[in-house]
Amino acid sequence: MKKRQILIVAAVLFTKLYSWSQLNSKVSENSKYVNPFIGTGSIDSLSLSGSNFPGAVFPFGFVQLSPDTDAEPEDPCSGYDYADNRIVGFSHTHLSGTGVADLFDFLFMPFKGEPKWYPYDSESEKGYSSIFDHKNEIATPGYYSVFLDDQKIKVELTATEHCGIHRYMSEGKEPFSLIIDLNHSLDKKRPYWSCKVIDAQIKIINNHIIEGYRTLTGWANLRKVYFRAEFSKAFNKTEIKSGNKIYLDEKIANHQNLKTIITFDNNEEPLVVKVGISSVSYEGAQENLKAEIKDFNFNEIRAKTENQWNKELSVIEIEGTEEQKKIFYTSLYHTFIHPNNIADVNGNYINSNGELRNSKEKKYYSTFSLWDTYRAEHPLLTIIQEKRSVDFINSMLDHYMEYGYLPIWQLWGKETYCMIGNHAIPVIVDAYHKKIPNIDYNLAYKAINASSTISHQNSAFNILEKYQYIPEDLESQSVSITLEIAYNDWCVAQMAKGLGYINDYTHFNNRSEFYQNLFDYNIGFFRAKDSIGNWIEPFSPLKYGGNGGYPYTEGNAWQYLWYVPQDIYSFMKMFGGEKQFADKLDDFFTLDAKPSDVNGNASGFIGQYAHGNEPSHHIAYLYDYAGQPWKSQYYTNRIVNDLYSSKPSGYSGNEDCGQMSAWYIFSSMGFYPVNPANNVYVFGSPQLNSAVIKLSKGKKFEIITHERSDENIYIQKILLNGKPYKKIYIKYQDIIIGGKIEFFMGSKPNRNMVNYDKPPLLSF
Amino acid sequence: MKKRQILIVAAVLFTKLYSWSQLNSKVSENSKYVNPFIGTGSIDSLSLSGSNFPGAVFPFGFVQLSPDTDAEPEDPCSGYDYADNRIVGFSHTHLSGTGVADLFDFLFMPFKGEPKWYPYDSESEKGYSSIFDHKNEIATPGYYSVFLDDQKIKVELTATEHCGIHRYMSEGKEPFSLIIDLNHSLDKKRPYWSCKVIDAQIKIINNHIIEGYRTLTGWANLRKVYFRAEFSKAFNKTEIKSGNKIYLDEKIANHQNLKTIITFDNNEEPLVVKVGISSVSYEGAQENLKAEIKDFNFNEIRAKTENQWNKELSVIEIEGTEEQKKIFYTSLYHTFIHPNNIADVNGNYINSNGELRNSKEKKYYSTFSLWDTYRAEHPLLTIIQEKRSVDFINSMLDHYMEYGYLPIWQLWGKETYCMIGNHAIPVIVDAYHKKIPNIDYNLAYKAINASSTISHQNSAFNILEKYQYIPEDLESQSVSITLEIAYNDWCVAQMAKGLGYINDYTHFNNRSEFYQNLFDYNIGFFRAKDSIGNWIEPFSPLKYGGNGGYPYTEGNAWQYLWYVPQDIYSFMKMFGGEKQFADKLDDFFTLDAKPSDVNGNASGFIGQYAHGNEPSHHIAYLYDYAGQPWKSQYYTNRIVNDLYSSKPSGYSGNEDCGQMSAWYIFSSMGFYPVNPANNVYVFGSPQLNSAVIKLSKGKKFEIITHERSDENIYIQKILLNGKPYKKIYIKYQDIIIGGKIEFFMGSKPNRNMVNYDKPPLLSF
Repeated sequence: MKKRQILIVAAVLFTKLYSWSQLNSKVSENSKYVNPFIGTGSIDSLSLSGSNFPGAVFPFGFVQLSPDTDAEPEDPCSGYDYADNRIVGFSHTHLSGTGVADLFDFLFMPFKGEPKWYPYDSESEKGYSSIFDHKNEIATPGYYSVFLDDQKIKVELTATEHCGIHRYMSEGKEPFSLIIDLNHSLDKKRPYWSCKVIDAQIKIINNHIIEGYRTLTGWANLRKVYFRAEFSKAFNKTEIKSGNKIYLDEKIANHQNLKTIITFDNNEEPLVVKVGISSVSYEGAQENLKAEIKDFNFNEIRAKTENQWNKELSVIEIEGTEEQKKIFYTSLYHTFIHPNNIADVNGNYINSNGELRNSKEKKYYSTFSLWDTYRAEHPLLTIIQEKRSVDFINSMLDHYMEYGYLPIWQLWGKETYCMIGNHAIPVIVDAYHKKIPNIDYNLAYKAINASSTISHQNSAFNILEKYQYIPEDLESQSVSITLEIAYNDWCVAQMAKGLGYINDYTHFNNRSEFYQNLFDYNIGFFRAKDSIGNWIEPFSPLKYGGNGGYPYTEGNAWQYLWYVPQDIYSFMKMFGGEKQFADKLDDFFTLDAKPSDVNGNASGFIGQYAHGNEPSHHIAYLYDYAGQPWKSQYYTNRIVNDLYSSKPSGYSGNEDCGQMSAWYIFSSMGFYPVNPANNVYVFGSPQLNSAVIKLSKGKKFEIITHERSDENIYIQKILLNGKPYKKIYIKYQDIIIGGKIEFFMGSKPNRNMVNYDKPPLLSF
Repeated sequence: MKKRQILIVAAVLFTKLYSWSQLNSKVSENSKYVNPFIGTGSIDSLSLSGSNFPGAVFPFGFVQLSPDTDAEPEDPCSGYDYADNRIVGFSHTHLSGTGVADLFDFLFMPFKGEPKWYPYDSESEKGYSSIFDHKNEIATPGYYSVFLDDQKIKVELTATEHCGIHRYMSEGKEPFSLIIDLNHSLDKKRPYWSCKVIDAQIKIINNHIIEGYRTLTGWANLRKVYFRAEFSKAFNKTEIKSGNKIYLDEKIANHQNLKTIITFDNNEEPLVVKVGISSVSYEGAQENLKAEIKDFNFNEIRAKTENQWNKELSVIEIEGTEEQKKIFYTSLYHTFIHPNNIADVNGNYINSNGELRNSKEKKYYSTFSLWDTYRAEHPLLTIIQEKRSVDFINSMLDHYMEYGYLPIWQLWGKETYCMIGNHAIPVIVDAYHKKIPNIDYNLAYKAINASSTISHQNSAFNILEKYQYIPEDLESQSVSITLEIAYNDWCVAQMAKGLGYINDYTHFNNRSEFYQNLFDYNIGFFRAKDSIGNWIEPFSPLKYGGNGGYPYTEGNAWQYLWYVPQDIYSFMKMFGGEKQFADKLDDFFTLDAKPSDVNGNASGFIGQYAHGNEPSHHIAYLYDYAGQPWKSQYYTNRIVNDLYSSKPSGYSGNEDCGQMSAWYIFSSMGFYPVNPANNVYVFGSPQLNSAVIKLSKGKKFEIITHERSDENIYIQKILLNGKPYKKIYIKYQDIIIGGKIEFFMGSKPNRNMVNYDKPPLLSF
């Protein structure tokens, strides 16, 4: 008995201690700074939407439950435009910040009055849509609510990793109905075969449960998605519209174009709907729902998800102005939305060939906007989401095993071939250089090698090898492709060298210099050649290309002039040296001329610099390499402060699945990965009073900025762990072991920095 | 030692006896009568193709390896037209006798000379196609060969259940190439979203093995098919065309439009290629190949498959003229092509929702052309393929479980909604009435009930219940749908009664009489009403409808006048009696008038009777019910002899997956199931000297015809098991227990048959 008493006392003590420790390790509540409306729309004719959505999402969650303001969402690609005042419904999947629209699965919309079927193709346009007012709208991490003025119904949304919950509170007790639209998509605006709902099913399981699926040839070809919706109250009437036929109280329908209306009589209590989503099967949707949402307790799920967000967002603690905190934590929030784990809770997923597979780790990440995110989003996540970064890469390797080469722009496991280059390569080589564990680097090398040798859309290696550049007459976007593949090749070469594949190293290192073959020394620009070797005329450095038909991708010759992150010092010599290079940068940042054909993707201008699109993102930092680091400080300060805000139009272009945000996070802390795979971060103008990055094993890296003010934008002095630091860069290893860097700021450029160590091309 | 000697002697004896018994039980070689060219084409401007293919197929096999004469096969739907003299290649899957084209998976074509890529969209048209001569062409069950005149290459094909084998023998030793076209389909002729290759992959595994898949939105929506091709010799060069890009010696390509050319240098030996096909996965294709074809022994597989055909075709042994044997056994052959088991050898299959499932029985049958085949093909197979009939029905029930209702016209597991009615119902109720074991009839009843209550495309039960007919203004093809569903409803009612569901019996029996609501007594025709109840004007009994937009489906009011197989005697009274009914039949068979809008499906005319399409198939037998059986004998004799031949144009319309053939088989034996679910077969004019149907447990049913000649087409006397038989029908039970029926024929109608027992509406 005595022994037992001791045990009880020990247990009580332990419990108390544990609670106390929990209390003290309580995560900070950074979610309160997050404003999901940032990036959701233009607020005047001069501002832009970041194509973000305001709805409810779990960190890296599969479900993004959010309002749509467009019955046929196309622009903004998030489905929601802050400038609109009409909501058409709430759908479960959205893309954050992309330039192409897709997803929008399963639109739910409540309404009052007799169910009516508006004429085919226009029902959501006005039919059940409702006016709303932003002052009746709330968005926080994991939660969204709005009052629908026309319907007099309050709608609240929250989400888990694979599920959404809706809560509908109606004013008055009259019956209300819910339309569930399985045909909500781009289908109608783009009535061609590559953007169609081509198969769908709806099943009324009983008066509490509805299931359905649809298959689309959208941006993601042959994407299939299932739902299972469970309702807290019985509905007493259903109508299904199947094509142009209407069926009352049927159990099942199969058609491409399906919608159902269900009606609830008893409205004294709010209606709660929990919806499980799966990309695999009905069983998957049901298992996801069962695993993540036990009952209809909306508030409990909301609190859990908010708590998870607070936990994730506490990975960096900052001090700064309220505005800075809003932008910073909203940016951090946006970097934690994609990629998504599309595997079900049981590990089942559908591979790129459309086949059922199972992941022991229950992880299959997708939505890799790599042309954007390899630049800063993935480099940021390797620091603050190392475990997930491993999962991302292992999912990419899975894709390679089935598809033959690594993802390019992969959505829900489907390759879209959007953009150019093969930028899974720098993501993998970055992890390799950072020695991130739990990745099979031999397999990874096979994958990057295959991705650099097997010719495929926008990657004509057969042509590249033959001509040592891409001739524009054989393959369009030739300058951008030649430059970006040269960078990829440098990455492959480094990993080949590291693993001892010397022939491969030589081959890819040589290929990484092919960019030189398109540099016109006479005019100081990269420009296109044809397959005979002649420069293509006429040439204008201002003229814009889009996504094909012109040598430059979503930009002009000015913006693509700077894309040699692997070999900046050699490149500089091609201009005649550091000074000439810096002078050209000056021209770039000051030349205001804009041709009439400015590409829609180019925005956020400072001269020819266009922060609204990714090709510009590293350029302000290039002065660090050219002996004028104060100009990197000047321009990065300008970009941070002029081209970001906490308004709905807070981004100067598409937010691009975290890339625009990751740029901000790095730059506001004072450094940026110009080459995203070389372990080097070069300095800009630190903005925050302090930032503390929490690292593994309780370590942390502190960034302290002294004397920072609107005028004091220039670095005067740097201390690393209390010691003077005379480099204009910091290595990954210096960050990851923990420590403290202090920047001392002033209003004048510190021209002594010309003597600081310049960034190396690779560091370990 | 002694004991051992005895054992050896016994073993030797046993072996000898076994061989002797094998010899004596050797199946007859009926495959020699089969001419797969019957039905493959018109031979002059007056004759028709049955839309059959001449290529190699295993009984009910998944693979139909056959030549295509059209680069974009659409008409004939089999891909091969006997009237053409140019072959574009050999593809692995074909439909036998359908009116809509699909499949044509993976076209292989050999050619000599340098690989050339003909301009996009026209390559097979002339490019690698070759002139051939029918005199260099052989087709037998399981084997096809042709000499390609342009290429000087002999091509031979044979097939197992899931695989095909090709053998190419080239004249001369110069290198030759093989193009494998993954884009061979209707794609180009029908460039709209519902007929596209939307995803494909090709993998060059090594220099002996190629794999690939493609997904199409064809007639079967979202059909996916894999292949694995293993070559007896190494190829030494590959080119892949991916869209409009050409890649040399690549390992993999992903695109909607894929083709590859492989080249062989060493041509002293013939090239043998074995190709496994799967609707599930690469692994499935490989397992199928491994299970069915061990090495590259073409002749062995050919012999095995021919042996299997001989075994299957021995189920009915006939005596008659050579012409009769050719038509009969080719017909039997055609009734054994569809449905097909689309499950892999391991039992994996893809269900109607596109999900992976496994069948313990390793069976998932598909390609149910039910509007055609419920009439005679399935009733024939319940007698001569009882085990497979069970599998068919169990596969249909699987479909119901996922899809909510039974297949209508199901292709590769996908519902096409082709045609009208729900004629899986009579197939199931036929099995129920025949007491075929190993079917869960409680589940089956649920399925037929659901299929008769859940409204779906062309089956608006909500409207039918409300108006007691289908109003043409609400749902087109209203007369045909009302009539055919009335028949389905009779079937449901009978099974409901049998299982004791009395309310259901009353409901469906009542609904089965709704046909009466569309009979216009003033003019003696079924005709359309609108939703107010008015006859729709103008009315012409000759005017044709197609598949929508008119009250009659692929026919006119004359042809649909006779569709009350469930209730013929009541129906007869609506004309005023037997005599008036028979008079109207006389008009039907003698009225030659043809409007200008004759539907393409109507052909094989005798008056308004059109044997080329199914609505007419039972009509010649209706005289049996009206006291003039000699007219059934007269007209069925005319149809058998005038509208069937052993020429390539041997059918008078689409052969329709065995239905036209099954009609011949029944009718040439002298009887036919007018109501395909009531266990009753009514007599026509038996044609064969004898027919012996082999039944289970060694039983057999013999049909002997005495004194049969071109003039002696009328039955004078009948003996059943030696005893006078005074009925103009025979019951299923009389056949299935085994026995012998003898028909004594003469040149004059036997008017005493007016006193024979008339066919009952249902028999057990």
